[in-house]
Amino acid sequence: MGYEARAMMPRRLSRALFVPVVLGAVLATGVARAAAAAPGSDVLPVLEALMLILVGARLGGSLFARFGQSPVLGELLAGILIGNLGLVGYHGLDGLRDLAGLDLLAQIGVLFLLFQVGLESDIQKMMAVGASSFLVAAVGVVAPMILGYFCSGWFFPAQSPLAHWFVGATLCATSVGITARVLSELKRTTSTEGRIILGAAVIDDVLGLIVLAVVAGLIHAADRGQAFQPMSVVWIIGKSLVFLVGAVVIGQWLSKRVFKFATRLRGEGLLLSFALAFCFALAYLAGRAGLAPIVGAFAAGLILDEVHYRDLRARDHANRDIPQLLEPIATFLVPVFFVLMGIRVDLRVFGTAGVLGFAAVLTLAAVLGKQACGLGVLEKGTDRIAVGLGMIPRGEVGLIFANIGLSLTIGGQRVVDPAEFSAVVVMVVLTTLMTPPLLTAWLRRTAKHS
Amino acid sequence: MGYEARAMMPRRLSRALFVPVVLGAVLATGVARAAAAAPGSDVLPVLEALMLILVGARLGGSLFARFGQSPVLGELLAGILIGNLGLVGYHGLDGLRDLAGLDLLAQIGVLFLLFQVGLESDIQKMMAVGASSFLVAAVGVVAPMILGYFCSGWFFPAQSPLAHWFVGATLCATSVGITARVLSELKRTTSTEGRIILGAAVIDDVLGLIVLAVVAGLIHAADRGQAFQPMSVVWIIGKSLVFLVGAVVIGQWLSKRVFKFATRLRGEGLLLSFALAFCFALAYLAGRAGLAPIVGAFAAGLILDEVHYRDLRARDHANRDIPQLLEPIATFLVPVFFVLMGIRVDLRVFGTAGVLGFAAVLTLAAVLGKQACGLGVLEKGTDRIAVGLGMIPRGEVGLIFANIGLSLTIGGQRVVDPAEFSAVVVMVVLTTLMTPPLLTAWLRRTAKHS
Repeated sequence: MGYEARAMMPRRLSRALFVPVVLGAVLATGVARAAAAAPGSDVLPVLEALMLILVGARLGGSLFARFGQSPVLGELLAGILIGNLGLVGYHGLDGLRDLAGLDLLAQIGVLFLLFQVGLESDIQKMMAVGASSFLVAAVGVVAPMILGYFCSGWFFPAQSPLAHWFVGATLCATSVGITARVLSELKRTTSTEGRIILGAAVIDDVLGLIVLAVVAGLIHAADRGQAFQPMSVVWIIGKSLVFLVGAVVIGQWLSKRVFKFATRLRGEGLLLSFALAFCFALAYLAGRAGLAPIVGAFAAGLILDEVHYRDLRARDHANRDIPQLLEPIATFLVPVFFVLMGIRVDLRVFGTAGVLGFAAVLTLAAVLGKQACGLGVLEKGTDRIAVGLGMIPRGEVGLIFANIGLSLTIGGQRVVDPAEFSAVVVMVVLTTLMTPPLLTAWLRRTAKHS
Repeated sequence: MGYEARAMMPRRLSRALFVPVVLGAVLATGVARAAAAAPGSDVLPVLEALMLILVGARLGGSLFARFGQSPVLGELLAGILIGNLGLVGYHGLDGLRDLAGLDLLAQIGVLFLLFQVGLESDIQKMMAVGASSFLVAAVGVVAPMILGYFCSGWFFPAQSPLAHWFVGATLCATSVGITARVLSELKRTTSTEGRIILGAAVIDDVLGLIVLAVVAGLIHAADRGQAFQPMSVVWIIGKSLVFLVGAVVIGQWLSKRVFKFATRLRGEGLLLSFALAFCFALAYLAGRAGLAPIVGAFAAGLILDEVHYRDLRARDHANRDIPQLLEPIATFLVPVFFVLMGIRVDLRVFGTAGVLGFAAVLTLAAVLGKQACGLGVLEKGTDRIAVGLGMIPRGEVGLIFANIGLSLTIGGQRVVDPAEFSAVVVMVVLTTLMTPPLLTAWLRRTAKHS
């Protein structure tokens, strides 16, 4: 190594360190003073968080991409790092976890992700694997629930069987965000496996609602000595079906007319504005029907067909398609969702006494239960393992269930106690973090073999 | 007219009415049930509002574009319509005015608008008209303030002279959003007039802060019989100057290095993510310095130079520039700002007894005061009227000042009473609404002549 090369080394290193250090110092100074923000400047903490999240997401994503890992794992871990600086004594960022504005942007971000995935998908092709999706969803709800029932019964024999069923219920619902993102990164959303998983995630959401209604209803009835009201379950199923069928039938019929109408308007940005309005409308209606808004965003993407907006697109000076127009918005907002998911992971739950054993067993039940999903696939030659892996991630729904359990009682005893709640949180974290590397590795492996 | 043509008429009409009516019915049904939203579904009202705003903005913008008017005026009026349905007995949308999530999206939207305008501008060219910008800003603060003082003195002779100065102060600060949007629509942001106005708006923000600090400080001192603290004013000027000089000097130096560093990362969307992070960082720092965050976003746009990110852009598969990447995000979020501005206009203030006379005189003072700005322009052959018209809009800053006045007292009497506050609101509404048509008409007229 010549003199010049050796002299370059420290300079290069100092250059490489320079930007992160300066950025870090600037951010830290800002953060330290954030508490003293002027009145009416509620937007400032959000701006600060966005800056941190955008840079963190790209640094984390890049680092993991360099090691052949999924960028989304890097985003999650960047979030965990940002969210747990309190453990090393720095509490300036503790507020991010509950910043309402950030939560809103994250929720809009995940809507855009599912809208994009829906746009890539085709409703006929989704219907073609509909039977498999339904079986995968059904198996994926029943199997983890039974496993969860036995795990809870083994660890907490003194509790009522209904409480065990409730813990089982927290294992039911797949959180499709992670899997959709990984499939999207690997350009596999339209593969048979991808379509089965996405369809199953929609049906899963409906089944999860039904399970929650039944189990919570039974617990309520048991606690008050009343009879269970089956009509409430019929009502929930009815609302969901009305939304799903209505979205597909009325949505398709309306979509053509809305874009035809928009073609007659003047101004710029009409295609994107009406596409976004359509996405928000279906997400809103899904939410009103008791489903997750992302189900509506996905349905909006499925329904919107290039044929509906061809004339409107031709007016755009660059002739850009809806997916192309959405891309920059997704680049901005989708990482907000994943980094915030990481930020919300409180690593202290891993240190709670007596939690880790139950959490480990619960996670195992969550993973193995969803592997049974592969059995529901009817199409020959389909990668059943990929389907099972894709169904692993649990998310908000599990946490929401557990949270409801914290407030339910049977004979004065809580259905879900704080230790069990922490175990559910650990299960959600582990299933979320394990899916990107497992699914990426598996899909790449099979791509090589085929 | 043949039989066919006559038969077509009602069908065409029914088709044209069809989409708005169906959309309206869907929205109304949703809205009526919004109050009963499920827990944890805080995002639903925002989704509903966004859908309404996106469609409303495009309908309003299209209608006004058809009549040769500025689309932004259509967006403002669509907002006024949405926000004042309560006057015709429909209260389902009253919540939009104070929806925190919507306000956040609007504020981020106006940041993007100013970032875009900053990107179109060039720092050297801004500096070239710096002296004019400074004079325009100074005249535009002093002249309306003096006029406001006399108006207030004439209508409310019993009040203290300091109260009159305070009313004058509410007329100082230009709200650059409207003018930036109109200049952008007419592609005139980089004209001499455009640059002078944008520069003046930045300086104006600093001067407005100083005026508020001085007048409020004097009132505080008068009310408590204490001496006025001039150091507080020095501190405010110091912070602003540190931000502005720091942003330009350190920002330029840092921008190159940040994008060079980003070039070495892996993954997609790096250019947009780092550009947005840079915009948010400067907006945040401007806010921390007590300035409007939009001043920071504008500065970020000014500083970012195509040279800094050329290598990073070349990695994007479509080789898109930052302005191209920003466009869809702006299409989504910028109308949220303008429609929400309209939604916030409460038409009932126009009906408050005794307000309209004072409001009319105050609006006249606001408009005439800013016409004096043309005198500050040093460049020969510059359209001084256009500069004066561009400085007309008053916005949040005037309302914030008036709001502070509501809480200040001199000898037990409020400095700004509710009637005066309403008059300030009317002045803000009128100056905002008159600028797009006046400026558009004037610039088009002169474009024809030259």
